[in-house]
Amino acid sequence: MSNLQSKAFNRAAKVIDRCREFARITDVPGETTRPFLSPATRNAHAKLLDWMREADLETRVDDIGNVRGIRRASDAAAPTFVLFSHIDTVPNAGAFDGVFGVLFGLALLEDLNHRNITLPFHIELIALSEEEGIRFAFPFLSVLALTRQLTSGHLARTDADGISVSEAISDFGLNPNSIATTCPLSPNTFAALEVHIEQGPVLDAANESIGVVSDIVGQSRLRFAFEGAANHAGTTPMSLRHDALAAAAQWIVSVEEYAASHSPMVATVGRIEVLPGGVNVVPGLVNATLDLRHPDDAIRREAVAALEAAAHEAATHRGVKATATLQSEQTSVAMNPALTAQLREAAQRAGYPARTMHSGAGHDAMIVAPHVPTTMLFVRSPNGLSHHPDEAVHKEDAEAALATALEFIQALH
Amino acid sequence: MSNLQSKAFNRAAKVIDRCREFARITDVPGETTRPFLSPATRNAHAKLLDWMREADLETRVDDIGNVRGIRRASDAAAPTFVLFSHIDTVPNAGAFDGVFGVLFGLALLEDLNHRNITLPFHIELIALSEEEGIRFAFPFLSVLALTRQLTSGHLARTDADGISVSEAISDFGLNPNSIATTCPLSPNTFAALEVHIEQGPVLDAANESIGVVSDIVGQSRLRFAFEGAANHAGTTPMSLRHDALAAAAQWIVSVEEYAASHSPMVATVGRIEVLPGGVNVVPGLVNATLDLRHPDDAIRREAVAALEAAAHEAATHRGVKATATLQSEQTSVAMNPALTAQLREAAQRAGYPARTMHSGAGHDAMIVAPHVPTTMLFVRSPNGLSHHPDEAVHKEDAEAALATALEFIQALH
Repeated sequence: MSNLQSKAFNRAAKVIDRCREFARITDVPGETTRPFLSPATRNAHAKLLDWMREADLETRVDDIGNVRGIRRASDAAAPTFVLFSHIDTVPNAGAFDGVFGVLFGLALLEDLNHRNITLPFHIELIALSEEEGIRFAFPFLSVLALTRQLTSGHLARTDADGISVSEAISDFGLNPNSIATTCPLSPNTFAALEVHIEQGPVLDAANESIGVVSDIVGQSRLRFAFEGAANHAGTTPMSLRHDALAAAAQWIVSVEEYAASHSPMVATVGRIEVLPGGVNVVPGLVNATLDLRHPDDAIRREAVAALEAAAHEAATHRGVKATATLQSEQTSVAMNPALTAQLREAAQRAGYPARTMHSGAGHDAMIVAPHVPTTMLFVRSPNGLSHHPDEAVHKEDAEAALATALEFIQALH
Repeated sequence: MSNLQSKAFNRAAKVIDRCREFARITDVPGETTRPFLSPATRNAHAKLLDWMREADLETRVDDIGNVRGIRRASDAAAPTFVLFSHIDTVPNAGAFDGVFGVLFGLALLEDLNHRNITLPFHIELIALSEEEGIRFAFPFLSVLALTRQLTSGHLARTDADGISVSEAISDFGLNPNSIATTCPLSPNTFAALEVHIEQGPVLDAANESIGVVSDIVGQSRLRFAFEGAANHAGTTPMSLRHDALAAAAQWIVSVEEYAASHSPMVATVGRIEVLPGGVNVVPGLVNATLDLRHPDDAIRREAVAALEAAAHEAATHRGVKATATLQSEQTSVAMNPALTAQLREAAQRAGYPARTMHSGAGHDAMIVAPHVPTTMLFVRSPNGLSHHPDEAVHKEDAEAALATALEFIQALH
């Protein structure tokens, strides 16, 4: 290993080590659980602020709890480039979802300092306080404050203990009334980058380190009800049944077939309820969910219509009634094409040719992108694991991302 | 309507009216709920004993709570013919399941008395105290005492309050230690008939009043587990999934197809559990039940093997692992062929040609049949309803059954 490589691997190792150290800051001993503004979040803030100050950043915590550090350009009137991801976690989380992007940004700034690289723009590192939607059953609260989209409705949401977002902010020592002044992105922000683990198996299956995200897929969520007739499993001949589960099962197979033949579509029936649920009773009612995602909104809507038709077909010839109800819909969000092209070229120059890929999961970047030119870099998730204690990042993948980001940031203008 | 017809319809109406009156004897006001030896059972016994005495029967209650009435033949040494069904109910039951057979038997004996018909055998009407298996999560307790099959294991079973079968019997004022002497069928019993509502839709769909039961189908109950991998519904491409529910769904469709093409087989997946059960998580584990019934035990076992193979096939090509576990198996029980032929001929003579059919549900008759020549008559269940407050019996169907039984019993020898 050359000196250069060894040094490079050290910066990558440092990001990973810090992520693991940060994962020990938790509300639940023995695991990593750190929802929005939880008790452990205070220690997380303290640790992160320490590291930011050590990197000579100008630090502050805004009034929704985002930890922010700025590396100033010499010209105070220079524009601002933003590096961001989140530091809250799901219950019993891994060490890398969100946090990796934040500590990656920190290492990048340290590397710039170390190399004495000056740039004609400020760089703000933002550690967002809420993305996972765990505490208030609603995601993206803190990034919505960055883009001035957080409403009084959001602030009135309550957690399991009846505490509102607003109260949680006050209890943490922050001022919810100042969100509109302390949280928004600097108006001179000209570009933004989120680095995040893939949370899926695509890069791992292809044995690739990094991927450039072209867009975050649109998503439809529906509930399907199949209403048949509950009957005695012994005395009701097959020909006289109206079996709600048999209808639902045929539909589930159709869902899988349809999505598989419309790549990169993904469609999932993740939850199903069968009533009355007796071992010896023909199912009379089935409730099922559908989660369908595709980067092209028109194709997604067409798929929803086709799968509604498939449900009716599976139901009708069994004398079962199918009804579909749209629960939520989210349109696809494109990353900035020019910036994404620059990121891809930077990866190429750094010696890590990166595939362009869709993000199947939602990310803070989808909230930022409509407001500021934004791009996103994925780092391989070994075995596709995420939201799991075994979540990991390979050192060589972190290095590929660091080398790419260093190329990217120096070419920005 | 002729006088004869009018009179006949009166006896049918009386059975139905008495069933409805009996249904008001309940542990839960406003519905019919009367499990084994419940408080209301005391009133049920009193009412039934009154009716039996009015019909000049020699009455007693045996030590598992069966109410028994004998119409004596003039010759004390004559053999005994038994009419039986049960008087316990499921929670929120209809008025006819079980009780219809008992009050039908009573009406038959009243009719014999009214017509001054003497027969060369005693007739014992037995109202069994337990068939549904509600209170002790185990069915057929009282008929097992009739055939000397009730064990100390059965007597030690406990209900939801921790009361054993033995204690329940004592608490009711009966003596569990006398079961072996007071409960068994008279050793001179030469034949037995159970009349029961069909509890299924076959007769109703064919617009027929009654059916003669050839056998009670055999039954296999299995649990199937489909083990795949839980993954993110957004980030896991269809090609990299191991979706346990998609595998289970393909299998459920196979179950339905297989049974439908092997009539009179019935096969039911009545219960299914999907884990982790998140709307946005690819199912990693599915547990499902299979209830499969057929009158031919060999065909049933072949079907179980075929559906296990179908589960493996549905699982394997998705990288899912299927395992099947046999929970219980019950062989088919044939009714006595000669007696069943006599019953069918009696129906023909009475002017109600009856189809021969399988019973898809278990009945007390399946416990009696291996010990005493037994036959069984089904009466149409309007809309196939049973175990439901709307359960009914048409007056003309009760009459068809009464006319058939009267022909049958007079031809017995």
